[in-house]
Parts: sequence; structure tokens; C-alpha cells
Amino acid sequence: MHTAPTSIVPARTAPPLQPAPPLQSTPRTTLTRGRHRGIEDRDALHDLLAQALLAHVGIDMGTHPVVLPCLPALDIEGPDEGGTLYLHGSVGAVWVRRLLADGSDVCVTVTELDGLVLARSATHHSMNYRCAVVVGRPRVVPEGPEKVRALDLLVDQVVPGRAMHLRPSTRKEMAATCVLAVPLAEASLKMRAGDPVDDEDDVAAGGWAGVVPVQRVLGDPVDAADNEAPVPAHVVRHVADDDGVRRVGMGDDVQRR
Amino acid sequence: MHTAPTSIVPARTAPPLQPAPPLQSTPRTTLTRGRHRGIEDRDALHDLLAQALLAHVGIDMGTHPVVLPCLPALDIEGPDEGGTLYLHGSVGAVWVRRLLADGSDVCVTVTELDGLVLARSATHHSMNYRCAVVVGRPRVVPEGPEKVRALDLLVDQVVPGRAMHLRPSTRKEMAATCVLAVPLAEASLKMRAGDPVDDEDDVAAGGWAGVVPVQRVLGDPVDAADNEAPVPAHVVRHVADDDGVRRVGMGDDVQRR
Repeated sequence: MHTAPTSIVPARTAPPLQPAPPLQSTPRTTLTRGRHRGIEDRDALHDLLAQALLAHVGIDMGTHPVVLPCLPALDIEGPDEGGTLYLHGSVGAVWVRRLLADGSDVCVTVTELDGLVLARSATHHSMNYRCAVVVGRPRVVPEGPEKVRALDLLVDQVVPGRAMHLRPSTRKEMAATCVLAVPLAEASLKMRAGDPVDDEDDVAAGGWAGVVPVQRVLGDPVDAADNEAPVPAHVVRHVADDDGVRRVGMGDDVQRR
Repeated sequence: MHTAPTSIVPARTAPPLQPAPPLQSTPRTTLTRGRHRGIEDRDALHDLLAQALLAHVGIDMGTHPVVLPCLPALDIEGPDEGGTLYLHGSVGAVWVRRLLADGSDVCVTVTELDGLVLARSATHHSMNYRCAVVVGRPRVVPEGPEKVRALDLLVDQVVPGRAMHLRPSTRKEMAATCVLAVPLAEASLKMRAGDPVDDEDDVAAGGWAGVVPVQRVLGDPVDAADNEAPVPAHVVRHVADDDGVRRVGMGDDVQRR
């Protein structure tokens, strides 16, 4: 059993050298429902994106949207307005080809589920979560130093400090991968934490209500079948540190079983 | 430490009375990249959706797509072609109003992350995951028995067997909630499991490679501040059973720390 942190721990990325601008509210990212759950706090947005292992990117395919999972990587000092969120995909992937061809906006959403909010009535059931929504026009990162750095950031997003332990990518490998840069200028962050909010009558009726914490945890590294080397220190350290990183923002609900 | 299941355990929903049709491949859901990772297996699709606590729904907003998190609920015997995936939202939510107004298709994606695939080169890094993509025209579920049942399914998707322990929703509560039914006819399922696949030269160079398992776990229920009742059996049971449910499909990589 761990004591839950009461405040958000520092993100894995360095803080910006100057204060970041507040989250920009455009009509596309202004929260309309549950405004009290939105927080206009760019640091909190960065914290969520810096820890994310999974984003869902929405692409307009012309007749319908598609939503696909992808790995995001945050560069708060990236060259785009508000900083940069990097995505990548095969140059042959349909969604990448679509974006290259039509240059339309994408929506990148990162959601971390923190708890099942079990109320005394169906209608007040909810989830505790943190959700970032970014809307923007992706830019193709050209071959060169930015692409090398972006691919390193993508590896380091998975396991911090890993990129430096790998051989450099070949030109052929680089050419087979498309890196997209989405500006962080238009973004919103919404979160819910804490207890269910029940109607007075339901509370008086005496039924149980509470929260079941949800947590994503890393397991011990499993060697590949063809591996004969020891698990490197940066991997061991990351798995051991996982408690501190993944439990960010989960409030007082978190208990490890 | 647990022994990982070697096959997919039964979904929480009952099996269909007659064999389900194979997943329909339309141009919108035919896998184009990594075809070997797609599995044309409707039971595997149902297993993933039956366990999902989080879907990401993509909506065409006219000038850009938005991707929002939502809770899905599976009814494999639902009235829509291929079965029904239910979503719900406030009747006042912008995305709900947009769908009601323009009747366009949505994309509902459910992704479960199972492992970080750490290869010997950056390019062969990957994730182990299961991902379902459903594209379809949502139908508004009218007031009546189907809506009551759908809302029960949504509660039971979070904690099986919970809906029966709650008071019935009032007419006002029902009217404030829009339930959408998405047909499961057009769907694809893609997954990756197992070791990294490295280049021979990189294996020969002797660096470490392996998989870090990723798992979503439930913690012990935390009573609400205004609660005086004991945790009900269906909640205790679900949290205790979580190992069996959430660890589905994770192959041999799974170890609980």
C-alpha cells in the first residue's frame, strides 16, 4: 500500500524556460459541457502528455472519421505554436497518406482513466479521468536533425533515456517513417477526480457509494527469446520508478493491491 | 506471480445463439498495414469490447474531427446489424447534438495496451496491443425498454451485475441522457503480441531486447466520504476477479509485480 501523492509530480520533460501561455480557447477547444472540470493549466496538459503511452488520433477520411491508436511524444520547446506533439507512422499507412495528400486538421486525444465512480443511482455513475484534446494541422517533419530528435523523443516517451542506448537509425529506416508535428496551441484539458455526487434522497437511503481506482502498471521486463543480455539499467529503473510516474493526478483514491 | 492464461477467456456476455458472421471487410475497415496482425474473428472482437472501460469516438465536426473518450457497452444480440455497441452522452453535449443534427458516421475505437516492445533498434520498437475499430451510423435509441436495457448494460459494463442493485432511473434522468446505438457490422480488430522482431545484425551485436508488460488493474474500493454502508458483494467480487478479466489476451508476457 502506498501513500498517494497529493499534488502533481514534475513531468519527465524539463520545464519551459519562460512561462507557457495559458491554454488557448478557440471555439474548437472551448469546453462546453462540465466547464468546472476543465483546467486552463498548460503545466497539467504537459504532465498528462509527457506520461502518455497511447493517444487516439482522429482523421477525416472524406466520408467518415477514423480513430487510430498511436504513440505521442511531447516536446514543450518544439518549433510549433504552443510546443509540439510528435506522432509517427509508416509512410505507407493509409492515414499518413491521407494527411500528406489533403493537409486537413487532426484531433489527438489522450485519456488516462483513474477510477470508476460508483454512485447510488445509475445517472450519477461516472469515471475519474484526465483527458487532453489537441486539434491542429500536422506538419511533416523533414529529414534532418528535427526528425532524428523527434524519433529519439518517441523512444524516450516509452522508456526515458532509452534512445541513447540504441544504434542510430539508418537512412532507409528514417525514410520509411513519417513523423508528424502537431502544434499544441489549440488544446483543452478536462479531468474529474473524487467522490460520486449523489442526490440527497439517495444518500439518505443508505446505499454504498465509492470509487474503484484504476491504474496502469508496468510488469517486470520479459527477455525476448533470442536475448542473452541482462536487462539494462534504464529499463530496470523505469519499471521500478513506474509507481511514481503513473500515479500522477490520481488523488487520494489510489491504493495498490 | 501469476501463470498467464494461454487462451482468451470467455467474455462477460453470453455467446450468441447462432454462429456470428465473420468480421465484414468493407473498404473502410479492411486492414491495409500489417495485415498479419488483423484477425477476422468476431469472438475476439466481442471479448475486447466486453471488457472495455474506455472507447474513443471520432466525430466529423464539419471542419475538423474531434475524438472524445466515452464508455462503450456491448450487446452482441442487439438489434443492429452485427450486434450493437451502445454509447451515451448528455443531450446537451456538442458532439451528441452534432450527431443528432447531421446523422453522419462515427468511428469508435477501443485500444488495450498490453506491452512495451523494446527492440535492439529504434525502428523495431513497438507496442503489444489489441485494437477494435468500428465505423457506423449511430441510431438514437428511443425512450422505452431498449433504452432502459442499454443504460443497464452501460452500468454493468463498469461493474458486472451492478445495475440490478440501483433504483430505476427517473423519467427526467432518462430524458437527459442520449443513448446511441452503433452497429457492429463494419469492424476490424488488430493486435500484436510477443517479442520484438529485430534485424539479424542487431541480434548478433548482443544488445538486450524484451517486453515490458502493461496492465490495467483495479484497486480496492474507496468509500465515498458520505458513505456508511459496507462495500457490496458485486463490487468486492469484481475487483477480486479483475486479474482474470483484465489479463485476457496478454500472452506469456504478463507478470504481476
